[in-house]
Amino acid sequence: MAKVEVTLKKEVHDPQGTAVENSLRALGFDGVQRVRVGKYLELVLEAETFEEAAAKIEEMSRRLLSNPVIEDYDYSLQEVE
Amino acid sequence: MAKVEVTLKKEVHDPQGTAVENSLRALGFDGVQRVRVGKYLELVLEAETFEEAAAKIEEMSRRLLSNPVIEDYDYSLQEVE
Repeated sequence: MAKVEVTLKKEVHDPQGTAVENSLRALGFDGVQRVRVGKYLELVLEAETFEEAAAKIEEMSRRLLSNPVIEDYDYSLQEVE
Repeated sequence: MAKVEVTLKKEVHDPQGTAVENSLRALGFDGVQRVRVGKYLELVLEAETFEEAAAKIEEMSRRLLSNPVIEDYDYSLQEVE
């Protein structure tokens, strides 16, 4: 299984994050300095090796899961049955 | 900094995940068995201790970041300057 996190690049404005930040303040949570909102994906895929799985996930992330112009991605892999 | 993953509960239908799964197949990726899509949030917040930070994140997750009826959340904490 791959867990993929897709986040907006640091220099890209994140209005959804700002909205969450404001809502947290409105609910009385203090000390919130910054909120960024991204996507999280879990993918179960077949692969013979971790290297093969990593290569697939890298390509999927570049081609579909993220927009490389404005987003970064990161992932971790773990074996499942 | 807290990294929060919000995912649909297993029994909740995930049309966005199905759409990603179908798109991956259409792009020629084989061996994809399941895709689930969730939210990923990074929050920078002030807290004296990890326990205080964890308590805040738990409450934020329950009250705003997730919908407890249909979603689960998980988080990790790390110290930043």
